[in-house]
Amino acid sequence: MMTTEQPAVPPARKPNEENGAAARSADWENPRVASILSAAAKCFARKGFTATTLAEIGKELGLRKSIVHYYFASKAALIHEVQSFTYHRYLDRLKEAIRNGDGSPQQATDALRALWDAIQSNKTGTGLNIEVWSAARRDAELKRRAAGLQRDARQVVRDAVAGSTKSPRSEALATLVLAVLNGLSVTEYLEGDELKAKEAYEAFLGLLQTALEAPTNGS
Amino acid sequence: MMTTEQPAVPPARKPNEENGAAARSADWENPRVASILSAAAKCFARKGFTATTLAEIGKELGLRKSIVHYYFASKAALIHEVQSFTYHRYLDRLKEAIRNGDGSPQQATDALRALWDAIQSNKTGTGLNIEVWSAARRDAELKRRAAGLQRDARQVVRDAVAGSTKSPRSEALATLVLAVLNGLSVTEYLEGDELKAKEAYEAFLGLLQTALEAPTNGS
Repeated sequence: MMTTEQPAVPPARKPNEENGAAARSADWENPRVASILSAAAKCFARKGFTATTLAEIGKELGLRKSIVHYYFASKAALIHEVQSFTYHRYLDRLKEAIRNGDGSPQQATDALRALWDAIQSNKTGTGLNIEVWSAARRDAELKRRAAGLQRDARQVVRDAVAGSTKSPRSEALATLVLAVLNGLSVTEYLEGDELKAKEAYEAFLGLLQTALEAPTNGS
Repeated sequence: MMTTEQPAVPPARKPNEENGAAARSADWENPRVASILSAAAKCFARKGFTATTLAEIGKELGLRKSIVHYYFASKAALIHEVQSFTYHRYLDRLKEAIRNGDGSPQQATDALRALWDAIQSNKTGTGLNIEVWSAARRDAELKRRAAGLQRDARQVVRDAVAGSTKSPRSEALATLVLAVLNGLSVTEYLEGDELKAKEAYEAFLGLLQTALEAPTNGS
């Protein structure tokens, strides 16, 4: 039975893993990679990043630690992949919404509203972000990767916002949108009040839409 | 020499420590309490909450662990006090600015601008917040206290915002302001780009001021 535990395919790491961009360094289409990511997300959400071991993640799937290690060089690499996987799933949806839209401020805020709903439907996502931020304090490589993900996300959000207005503020607004998403996720996580966070997000979308509809005043 | 290590005054905990509000449960005016809080902030920022022990915090000050424990029942109580101390220092300044102001939207955004500058001048504050959020995932009492601090802060910010307009959105806007402060602190922490975060905050204050200046439209 041991042989079934041996990977049948080469590791999913691609050559561009080391380039520091938020490149997809693991093959998320590989069922075993996907199952490890899913089990890791569960373990991190349950016990936190620090207290979780690669062995425990393997145990969830009946796999040895060495198999998990074969696909992911370290726990830090694994938590980054879990976060990256989640981010890119959201961003792909946002890109899709923008592609199918008319470029109006209304469409931009509708797309951002759908993004909020998607994020809120993933209850472990905020806990995972907090774990990454915390772990990044003691892991420069993880911090660099998390920053890369933020930049990727900002690019997509900026396209959503700039689609309706070429305001020079679009970079600042994109940074703001991401901060609001992160900040309100923390609010909801701490206070457990989904409605309060949602109302604040709606207030934000109101402010944003007003700004996008106003003629650029050069300020 | 042992006797000099014994506390000369009763522990600084007040009866209301257990009431769950963000009450000031430690006497911050007590120099020993203040020195422990300061040493703890330094240790948490350096090594993180999990890896720091009460013994190490004591060592910073040449105190035994038992002395630290005499003033703070647990590491969780200590990190809460450190965060609470920092929050209340900021909030006291914000209250002061509001008291001395004219209640205009311009004054509200000026006060919030000063708040940002104060937060940014404390480089370990964001790391501490992230440590608290992370530790709160495994400590319900700490989470409850962190949520209490958020509510305290929201009340002060709402007064700042509602001073200029009695909009029904003031609660939502106050929640939003705190989320932006938390979210942009994370942005700056991850990317190390102070200017980017500042620009996004300025963009936010611009949106907020426009909203506060507009007549309430009942939406």
